[in-house]
Amino acid sequence: MPAPIEFYFDFASPYAYLLSEQIEAVATKYGRSVKYKPTLLGAVFKQIGGAPLTEIPFKGDYSRHDFARSARFAGIKYQQPDPFPVSALNASRALLWLQGTGSAKSVSFVHTVFRAYFTQNRNISEMPVLLEIADELGIDRDAIAAAVQDPAVKDKLKAAVEESIKRGVFGAPFVFIDGEPFWGNDRLPQIERWLQYGPF
Amino acid sequence: MPAPIEFYFDFASPYAYLLSEQIEAVATKYGRSVKYKPTLLGAVFKQIGGAPLTEIPFKGDYSRHDFARSARFAGIKYQQPDPFPVSALNASRALLWLQGTGSAKSVSFVHTVFRAYFTQNRNISEMPVLLEIADELGIDRDAIAAAVQDPAVKDKLKAAVEESIKRGVFGAPFVFIDGEPFWGNDRLPQIERWLQYGPF
Repeated sequence: MPAPIEFYFDFASPYAYLLSEQIEAVATKYGRSVKYKPTLLGAVFKQIGGAPLTEIPFKGDYSRHDFARSARFAGIKYQQPDPFPVSALNASRALLWLQGTGSAKSVSFVHTVFRAYFTQNRNISEMPVLLEIADELGIDRDAIAAAVQDPAVKDKLKAAVEESIKRGVFGAPFVFIDGEPFWGNDRLPQIERWLQYGPF
Repeated sequence: MPAPIEFYFDFASPYAYLLSEQIEAVATKYGRSVKYKPTLLGAVFKQIGGAPLTEIPFKGDYSRHDFARSARFAGIKYQQPDPFPVSALNASRALLWLQGTGSAKSVSFVHTVFRAYFTQNRNISEMPVLLEIADELGIDRDAIAAAVQDPAVKDKLKAAVEESIKRGVFGAPFVFIDGEPFWGNDRLPQIERWLQYGPF
């Protein structure tokens, strides 16, 4: 069994959302699984430099246009959320906790949080929204509420962010396949070629 | 006859080189021509912010790797030049002059300069290299040497850079089709869809 595809992301990244809607089908086609690895781009940018695309002069207007166009190009539903971006802190802690429990629902949680933000304009930084999502998925809401305040879970996320920076993750989505790095939703064609034919 | 594809670029941009090797075939397929519009990313970055990819922490290492991999992916010859980047000032002035003369060789000049830099490691910021290229293409070397010092040509490039910034060009390659902006070599699939089926 070949190694899983490592998928680093921030829940508030539009291009990470777009790739998350496509990566599993491609992975499955080539006998791979996907390991979702949350990071926090705000913390990454603070440590190594960088800024949200939409806050960069000129690039901001283009990017908002390109998020929606890239979604239409891929046939994926998309609605620019407002406020944007928002903190992925709580959602990321919740995901790490869920993954730690071995729950089969962790992948559904990733997709449901992404879609809540990017198709329903629900503010995923807020706990009531995350608890609603827990209810939708049949995840224990009290357990998730406790988890995001759990010092052990907080430390886990801190370690995850540090690990992502050590791996050279400077944006999202950031995918590793057999150690090979691919940055951005637009690297999907290269990812597919790598999976099909190996290194090129 | 539909409007030409406007192709903004800097001669030292690897992704602009990669797209320049592919855009004309796609344009021709859909009855379009390509209008090459030089700009200077150094001047653009100074005015609106930004930096060469290779000078950004983390992103630099990834980018150097991705330049070459993206070239292999597209089946295009590529060799990372050193020094990198270099100034496109002289080459851009020479191109604007050549375009102004109505010479049929201006497109060949674009490709020959790009290939000199990205496949032969020739320093295209230096006049002797540009004069060699003029010789290779049968362009009057004295005329080109005079053109790069001509105040009217210098003003033309200044105006071209200003115009690119006004259009919202913040990187390269930056392509407009019927006013629609596409940034980056990796937007080629979206460009092709736009040309084939129109707005999406």
